Amino acid sequence: MNKIRVGILGATGMVGQQYVSLLEGHPWFEVTHVVASPSSAGKSYAEAVKGRWHMKKDIPAGVAGLVVQSVENLDAVKDCDFVFSALDSDIAKIWEEKYAEAGIPVVSNASTHRHTKDVPMIMPEVNPHHLDIIKEQQKARGWSRGFIVVKPNCSIQSYVAPLAALHKDFKLKSVIVTTMQAISGAGFPGVASYDILDNVVPFIGGEETKSEIEPRKILGSIKDGAFVYDESFTISAHCNRVPTIDGHLATVSFTCETKPSREDILVRWKNFRGVPQELNLPFAPKQAIIYREEENRPQVRLDRDTDKGMAVTVGRLREDPVMQWKFVGLSHNTIRGAAGGGILIAELLRANGYIG
Amino acid sequence: MNKIRVGILGATGMVGQQYVSLLEGHPWFEVTHVVASPSSAGKSYAEAVKGRWHMKKDIPAGVAGLVVQSVENLDAVKDCDFVFSALDSDIAKIWEEKYAEAGIPVVSNASTHRHTKDVPMIMPEVNPHHLDIIKEQQKARGWSRGFIVVKPNCSIQSYVAPLAALHKDFKLKSVIVTTMQAISGAGFPGVASYDILDNVVPFIGGEETKSEIEPRKILGSIKDGAFVYDESFTISAHCNRVPTIDGHLATVSFTCETKPSREDILVRWKNFRGVPQELNLPFAPKQAIIYREEENRPQVRLDRDTDKGMAVTVGRLREDPVMQWKFVGLSHNTIRGAAGGGILIAELLRANGYIG
Amino acid sequence: MNKIRVGILGATGMVGQQYVSLLEGHPWFEVTHVVASPSSAGKSYAEAVKGRWHMKKDIPAGVAGLVVQSVENLDAVKDCDFVFSALDSDIAKIWEEKYAEAGIPVVSNASTHRHTKDVPMIMPEVNPHHLDIIKEQQKARGWSRGFIVVKPNCSIQSYVAPLAALHKDFKLKSVIVTTMQAISGAGFPGVASYDILDNVVPFIGGEETKSEIEPRKILGSIKDGAFVYDESFTISAHCNRVPTIDGHLATVSFTCETKPSREDILVRWKNFRGVPQELNLPFAPKQAIIYREEENRPQVRLDRDTDKGMAVTVGRLREDPVMQWKFVGLSHNTIRGAAGGGILIAELLRANGYIG
Amino acid sequence: MNKIRVGILGATGMVGQQYVSLLEGHPWFEVTHVVASPSSAGKSYAEAVKGRWHMKKDIPAGVAGLVVQSVENLDAVKDCDFVFSALDSDIAKIWEEKYAEAGIPVVSNASTHRHTKDVPMIMPEVNPHHLDIIKEQQKARGWSRGFIVVKPNCSIQSYVAPLAALHKDFKLKSVIVTTMQAISGAGFPGVASYDILDNVVPFIGGEETKSEIEPRKILGSIKDGAFVYDESFTISAHCNRVPTIDGHLATVSFTCETKPSREDILVRWKNFRGVPQELNLPFAPKQAIIYREEENRPQVRLDRDTDKGMAVTVGRLREDPVMQWKFVGLSHNTIRGAAGGGILIAELLRANGYIG
Repeated sequence: MNKIRVGILGATGMVGQQYVSLLEGHPWFEVTHVVASPSSAGKSYAEAVKGRWHMKKDIPAGVAGLVVQSVENLDAVKDCDFVFSALDSDIAKIWEEKYAEAGIPVVSNASTHRHTKDVPMIMPEVNPHHLDIIKEQQKARGWSRGFIVVKPNCSIQSYVAPLAALHKDFKLKSVIVTTMQAISGAGFPGVASYDILDNVVPFIGGEETKSEIEPRKILGSIKDGAFVYDESFTISAHCNRVPTIDGHLATVSFTCETKPSREDILVRWKNFRGVPQELNLPFAPKQAIIYREEENRPQVRLDRDTDKGMAVTVGRLREDPVMQWKFVGLSHNTIRGAAGGGILIAELLRANGYIG
Repeated sequence: MNKIRVGILGATGMVGQQYVSLLEGHPWFEVTHVVASPSSAGKSYAEAVKGRWHMKKDIPAGVAGLVVQSVENLDAVKDCDFVFSALDSDIAKIWEEKYAEAGIPVVSNASTHRHTKDVPMIMPEVNPHHLDIIKEQQKARGWSRGFIVVKPNCSIQSYVAPLAALHKDFKLKSVIVTTMQAISGAGFPGVASYDILDNVVPFIGGEETKSEIEPRKILGSIKDGAFVYDESFTISAHCNRVPTIDGHLATVSFTCETKPSREDILVRWKNFRGVPQELNLPFAPKQAIIYREEENRPQVRLDRDTDKGMAVTVGRLREDPVMQWKFVGLSHNTIRGAAGGGILIAELLRANGYIG
Repeated sequence: MNKIRVGILGATGMVGQQYVSLLEGHPWFEVTHVVASPSSAGKSYAEAVKGRWHMKKDIPAGVAGLVVQSVENLDAVKDCDFVFSALDSDIAKIWEEKYAEAGIPVVSNASTHRHTKDVPMIMPEVNPHHLDIIKEQQKARGWSRGFIVVKPNCSIQSYVAPLAALHKDFKLKSVIVTTMQAISGAGFPGVASYDILDNVVPFIGGEETKSEIEPRKILGSIKDGAFVYDESFTISAHCNRVPTIDGHLATVSFTCETKPSREDILVRWKNFRGVPQELNLPFAPKQAIIYREEENRPQVRLDRDTDKGMAVTVGRLREDPVMQWKFVGLSHNTIRGAAGGGILIAELLRANGYIG
Repeated sequence: MNKIRVGILGATGMVGQQYVSLLEGHPWFEVTHVVASPSSAGKSYAEAVKGRWHMKKDIPAGVAGLVVQSVENLDAVKDCDFVFSALDSDIAKIWEEKYAEAGIPVVSNASTHRHTKDVPMIMPEVNPHHLDIIKEQQKARGWSRGFIVVKPNCSIQSYVAPLAALHKDFKLKSVIVTTMQAISGAGFPGVASYDILDNVVPFIGGEETKSEIEPRKILGSIKDGAFVYDESFTISAHCNRVPTIDGHLATVSFTCETKPSREDILVRWKNFRGVPQELNLPFAPKQAIIYREEENRPQVRLDRDTDKGMAVTVGRLREDPVMQWKFVGLSHNTIRGAAGGGILIAELLRANGYIG
């Protein structure tokens, strides 16, 4: 089988590099185009990232020699089957729609279209049916082959799946979450070392709003070609930057309309399987939510890489004296929370015939 | 004036060293006795801590030459005016009452007597009137001059004062707090570096219970020679160890019976003054609660040392979508939360004629 | 083929756990016996390490259920083909010879026998011929099947191979090396976090002597059944502990009798191949010494895991104004420098018919 | 006495902020002018540094309200007695001479003029007599009151004083030094946290050359209105960035023409006093070089703040198998190595009548 041809918009940045690195050897996808700002255009990818390649693995041989295209040159990527967008939000705003209009499906990490009414924000295990809106999106905009799908923010990955697993049966009502987020979440150069060594910064611009609102769209429904947010629950988020490299940890207290038993919760987490698991997608973790019995887990450094960094690890489920239950969740912010999550969305799109 | 003669039980440990270090040059108190386990007895203090002195300042000259006494040898400290106890809880259990019985007031950092019914657990700005129970404690136990007073856990210092400032007028109902606690809170050797570098450990043994229950005694009342806990509010705590050296940060969401306005809260924090401020005690911070207007403060490394490490710094007061309000609090765990807090209690005792 | 049966002495400690973890799925070796102090004996391995398992991977299923044997019970491991010893040096002193005497080959990480005159200290790419002494060792001691082979200290791995690659042709004369060693080198609990966060400790007990002397044995020769150390060169070492998790970095200045050209050095590093590479041993890195051209490499976090943590990465070769040349070297201290290095020695022993 | 009026060029940057912070309450100097890039001009200092004030102490009240002047507006600072320059090197190149020409003495942290032949590079305890060249500098350039004096690089502070203390009597010949430098040495934002957490970067652009060459000027002499570098010794430097906040540590091996005894060295370090000590200058450390007897000192976090961060702490003096002696040195890079060092130079200038 010929591999699907993939372009990466914003290929020279941190998230773009992660796409390049994670896609090496992918069974379905092959990086054939690397796109960046006009200033990098014309260089080989290896030249363009020289001195600022941040991945542990070296640049994959098949990508190092690709010539970087300017994001403004849509023609150059016309023969891509789809693109991952790792563009900054302000650039994404200008270009993502143009790519979709030009017939190229866009799987985006940018926050630009997360609340666009006909753009699905996908967590593959949670709301794969939201892809249904793609046809309406195309129709409304007069696009034939192109469309836009987005990935939610990295900060919500550690608690949305565990809560979604309970929502159907017990109706989530309220959640208070405190995140302890790794520095890699800020991209590169991101957080100055002087600001975070021996420190906690209890503020990340815009992050609390994202953490409170995005889950409502993900757990929402489609009506008349637009998303209806699930307003049946409320989330309060405290977002903090801590001196860890990768892995966002969250402490979570929550209340449901019907209080689940401990067994209710553990069973649903254990049995939480989604389309990615059923289809056995390449980047799907075998077990989407892993509950650790140890009293001091999950821990950031020990558990973030679980199942290639794609599983969510939870632990410490215990009764909450104020709300009903509390627990700790962890997910790898630059794999599940960024490029890995984007790849899993693309795999889902492929399995459903939207691309390829 | 002759200085008050002070002994330190557990003088060679981490908290003991902090007492020794912080008391250097104290206007009222002079360390005249250093007490430790029998294995250190007979050595000079300098010898006893050789290779394990962890303070930045060198050993104060006046203490370096003191001969370490065995904790079992009560006679040796008979001429102390009072002692600070930095004993481990299991040792404290055996010895603190014997010292009190022998006529020596004990100001303790140990958790042993925190819930003993006639022992006051003091935050000097919050419940100085709890010292009234001392007379009943002495009477009930037949002690003449000795008594026991304890300091609460370091984890609660960053949120109890800010909440106590509101409790009287608005009646606290429920609180959800997540702490991010520094490694020095675990003593020495404490947390292995391999366990905490590039990591967050979402568990500290016993800490969540302390964080949830101790505030109820501190905000409680005295009845018939015993403390009645304030059961009118409930706290849920998530306690985490993070890779910072000193300073416990807390994110706090809370609800009161009557919802205070933003102004209500800020005014009460600003005006929060207690007996230590009125009496201008040497270790009292000028302003007990300091509100920072910046959107990204308090930060652990920048704010922990505020006013010699004795002030609580708060910030980011904002409406909470689930509860009423949320904010961030910070206090220095080894100064305000340990030896510095103990010294302020002793100053309060002195000012009220209980010692000296 | 039946796998070779392997026992691990000191299986519950940090290095023992690394052996257990790294040997999972090994093509030749199978862990069949786990040995620890009498206090752990009788428990399953999973129970024995409960709450103190420090590896990222979970306990391999095949080892979790093994019953821990007491180190004092030699009979229990009689049917092992050989053992890895991860015993503390003082315990190793008592037991390693007993195991060898009982017919069990011992591959040891302990420092006990590093300078025993008939015990080879092996770096598989550098001095595989030193295994020749095994027969003399057995003969002199009246041992039939058993023998002792040791692995050198982790601190020397980053500079001995690069220097050995030059010694034959240019005759090394003097070396000044400064190591920046990771906390995992101290085992567990090892370095207290309070001692190393935001700190460098310019002292590691005994480490400088090991770093200066061990290379002389490794580059030495055998005469009359004993090792003759190579006294033709001198090393001066400054050993420091820095706040990194894994990976020992070294800055190295050196002088040879004949000054090599830059090309001379780079060619010898590139072509440095040893028996492990020729035999294609399972744990052998493909390229034993990897030279990075970037001006700011090797870096600890980026390069320590190169080729499963078994390769030495060097960089920044430049003329030294005082000596002849200087460079930077890096190796993974708990893989190449500990269990991985031990496994490679065992593979070499197997390939040469000493075990199995 | 009226205080001397001081301007700070580059006042909004990290080093500029340190000058502002350290000069608060200075007995002789008063910050009366803050100068920055044209983009900040016209704002109050508090506004100009809003959101990027990095000091632990809040902005001194007396400076917060000063109006920031553009560096291009020399008239604005005409009534300063002198200025500290914390300008970036490229800007310093353009402006420092203009200020001097305009009659304003410049004490500079920039590297621009460190090797200008008639500009003295001063370590106040080592080469205060180099100030003699100021008159020749002024004469040659036709300047009346203005002149330029510079401070050397922060990386050399931990070893130059200890070596200079020996040079006169024993004639230094060769030195090999490895530095482990704190992140604050790179300014702000400086090193990205992603680049340094759990890492060592064995490269700092330009730093090794500075570390090798600057000491030769400092220990050199003046001839015919120009500096003659001391070529009698050679230094080889390996410069590394490590994850510490403040404090540059160095491991040093050295050889002298005449080998000093251990006693020779310790006595000279102990007795090392310079003009700053004799004149009892406000920022002078009482003891310029402090030798710690403990086997594991100096340590970065414990010793960097010694004597307000102005003393150099040394330790671990031992024979070197390759050279003659080796030791460890430490100095605070942003105090002694930057603003504090600049202030001490200014105090020396004042004491010698060059300013004020």
